[in-house]
Amino acid sequence: MGSARLSGYVASERERIVEELIEYLSIPSISGDPDHVADVRLSAEFTAGLMHRAGLENVALLGEPSAPAVYGDWLRAGSDAPTAVVYGHHDVQPVDPLAEWRTAPFDPVIENGECRARGAIDDKGQVLYELEAVRGLLASDGRLPMNVKFLIEGEEEIGSPHMEAFLLAERERLDTDVIVVSDTGMWAPDVPSICVGMRGLVAFDVSLRTAANDLHSGSFGGAVPNACHLLADLVSALHDSSGRVTLPGFYDQVRDPSEQESRSLAALPFDEERWMVTAGVATTAGDTSHRVLERIWTRPSCDVVGIGAGHIGAGMKTVVPAAANARVTFRLVADQDPEEVVKRFVHWVEDQVPRGVEIRIDRRGTVAPVASPVDHPAVGALSRSIEKVWGVAPLYTREGGSGPEETLTRVLGAPLVFLGVGLPGDRIHAPNERMIMEQFWKGLLAAGELWHELATTPGVSRRDRVVG
Amino acid sequence: MGSARLSGYVASERERIVEELIEYLSIPSISGDPDHVADVRLSAEFTAGLMHRAGLENVALLGEPSAPAVYGDWLRAGSDAPTAVVYGHHDVQPVDPLAEWRTAPFDPVIENGECRARGAIDDKGQVLYELEAVRGLLASDGRLPMNVKFLIEGEEEIGSPHMEAFLLAERERLDTDVIVVSDTGMWAPDVPSICVGMRGLVAFDVSLRTAANDLHSGSFGGAVPNACHLLADLVSALHDSSGRVTLPGFYDQVRDPSEQESRSLAALPFDEERWMVTAGVATTAGDTSHRVLERIWTRPSCDVVGIGAGHIGAGMKTVVPAAANARVTFRLVADQDPEEVVKRFVHWVEDQVPRGVEIRIDRRGTVAPVASPVDHPAVGALSRSIEKVWGVAPLYTREGGSGPEETLTRVLGAPLVFLGVGLPGDRIHAPNERMIMEQFWKGLLAAGELWHELATTPGVSRRDRVVG
Repeated sequence: MGSARLSGYVASERERIVEELIEYLSIPSISGDPDHVADVRLSAEFTAGLMHRAGLENVALLGEPSAPAVYGDWLRAGSDAPTAVVYGHHDVQPVDPLAEWRTAPFDPVIENGECRARGAIDDKGQVLYELEAVRGLLASDGRLPMNVKFLIEGEEEIGSPHMEAFLLAERERLDTDVIVVSDTGMWAPDVPSICVGMRGLVAFDVSLRTAANDLHSGSFGGAVPNACHLLADLVSALHDSSGRVTLPGFYDQVRDPSEQESRSLAALPFDEERWMVTAGVATTAGDTSHRVLERIWTRPSCDVVGIGAGHIGAGMKTVVPAAANARVTFRLVADQDPEEVVKRFVHWVEDQVPRGVEIRIDRRGTVAPVASPVDHPAVGALSRSIEKVWGVAPLYTREGGSGPEETLTRVLGAPLVFLGVGLPGDRIHAPNERMIMEQFWKGLLAAGELWHELATTPGVSRRDRVVG
Repeated sequence: MGSARLSGYVASERERIVEELIEYLSIPSISGDPDHVADVRLSAEFTAGLMHRAGLENVALLGEPSAPAVYGDWLRAGSDAPTAVVYGHHDVQPVDPLAEWRTAPFDPVIENGECRARGAIDDKGQVLYELEAVRGLLASDGRLPMNVKFLIEGEEEIGSPHMEAFLLAERERLDTDVIVVSDTGMWAPDVPSICVGMRGLVAFDVSLRTAANDLHSGSFGGAVPNACHLLADLVSALHDSSGRVTLPGFYDQVRDPSEQESRSLAALPFDEERWMVTAGVATTAGDTSHRVLERIWTRPSCDVVGIGAGHIGAGMKTVVPAAANARVTFRLVADQDPEEVVKRFVHWVEDQVPRGVEIRIDRRGTVAPVASPVDHPAVGALSRSIEKVWGVAPLYTREGGSGPEETLTRVLGAPLVFLGVGLPGDRIHAPNERMIMEQFWKGLLAAGELWHELATTPGVSRRDRVVG
């Protein structure tokens, strides 16, 4: 760590940076709570201040006035140098259940090497080290080796509802060679890793209706269709006995991980017993022809996230339920096309349910899967940056997130790389969210390395690609 | 009808009887509503008054002071004559949704030959014609041909929670040869019928737990068990593809209907299309090796009456649900033993669910099935009584009710016969409950005939059975 480019800057600015972190985390920028609109705006303004102080130019609050995205750039590296967009977000999750916090969520504390506050790791801490890396480089060198454009969103925790329209409108301003997402995690402090893919999602509400009203089970039971049974049949039929999803063609477009990624995956120190304890389960499940990490990272899956019908509360209603509902979700991996899965699912449901039963299928949101090929030059650049700071080459992981990453890569037409220093146990979205400070400082150094690596790696710039 | 024993009485007392009916139905004796405790008591006292005026003796309010059963007897026929207990109830169902009533539920009206009020057919109307038949016979003949004991309950609509203890305590007072239940219905006004069996019920709450908490479906989906899926597998496995219940041995104790009952069942003018319209279904279901009426009357069935897990409301929780619940009910027929079915079910569930998944099974109540063999002398006596009044021999039906009938026959050790004049369309437990007045008058006449038929039919008295 001592040898890294920005270590002097970190040593001399440490106290001020911690103060900035604590001030940033004190702003309760909960985008999902209308009572905090002013705080989200304040947080955007604070982010803009951080950009100004870092030396970024063209700083502006863009998009929704109630939850602005913050933009700032440094474009003085010239048109021969590549350009990166850095994506992060300054809004945070709600804090419920408040009683479970050891200290107030917006009264940040640093103790035992951890910073505890809502937003510490998701995502203000990660935004801050990116900005401090730029500030350090501009302070020491007066320049960056490439052009950078920061886009720090204010609506990530509510599903980025305006991101696609915003990106389409701002495509020119955000024109880039690569997107650096600073919002993910690593395997372990001593096992640095790079996220190289995120599963996508398609979700449906499925409703079945078998009769106008619930019927008395004494008078009708055994001779009329029961919506509960039919829904159970449907849910049960989604998987075969080996744990595979039964939708015809569901796996056809799944891209198998490259040999390099498979080797990395096998090299991860994965302890299935410990993982089960963390998950709180007494048994694993799913497609046994793939290992657990493959099942959650590189394979698609199907989970019914809710089901409801009839009456299970207090009292006893002896009815044949007339209606039943399920929310069915599919996690997708590259190169599955969500629209293709939607078609297959709708067709399959209509095929499964007997005639005379009303079916209603409503879509509940779509996120396409993303993957960064591990042999992409930008992934190589990131890998070298991390190795310089952690002293060991990172392995490759994937994540289950469903943020705006797919929208970013699709609309901006640039590859994604993920520099993220979160750790399992950071309690993201939960009480006592934390960031390990050592990870923060290393993230700052790696972010600084990354600009040099990206600037000097052939194939990162679109210009290279057009030429080569 | 003109030839029946009590037709003169009905002709001269008609107006007074209607007044009694309207006064009786004006009392809002809702046993399920604590605000109506005084009304249930008032209704018990009114029932006692009806008994006094009918000429019954030893009239008393028994059992729960808050919802008394009313007892009265006439035992002067001597110890050589048989004895009957007449069972009915004076409490009624709640009236919600009140807005759907065409007239106020406790402001009884008689129009177009129908009496509309809560309790009209379930069960005050049926209690009244039984009492008026006794009153008419005592008025005209000064005696009854046999001994009768009325037991008019006040807690039927809340599941008769004290009935078993009450019967055990009052076994001697209620000693009887036969029980006449006056709380059921007929096939159609011109197709009189006798209920000869009621399905029983066992019910369970089944809970599965796969993890300590719901898990993020992006991070864990595809590698951890999903409680929703496992519950769906369980519910789906309850039936095979031919609609039969899969519990091993489930059908072993089912008593097939006698040839006579089967002939009657085939003779009923059953229109499956019309039945489907009434039920509001577009398809039938269940074990296709039996006809619809067999499925709902003489065959046991299984209905999951409710299921719940995870999240299906507004918003989107992308979780793998850790817990799922279902309420599973079985409708039973004679001679299935509920305790045997309980054992089979618990064993079956434990067998179905994979290891590492927590199972909890709670019993939710039990009603044993009852059946009156159609060749029993008392059923023959009831049949002739109905034929005398309706002019056509009744057919045999069954019902799905889960009232106290099984407790009555078991504790008192006497067979049940069902004289009931309800009709499909009487809207029992629903808004605008009604009784067809023509059915009421015929019920009164048939009730009078029944005492003479029972008194003269060999084999009704236990004495005959001991001798013969």
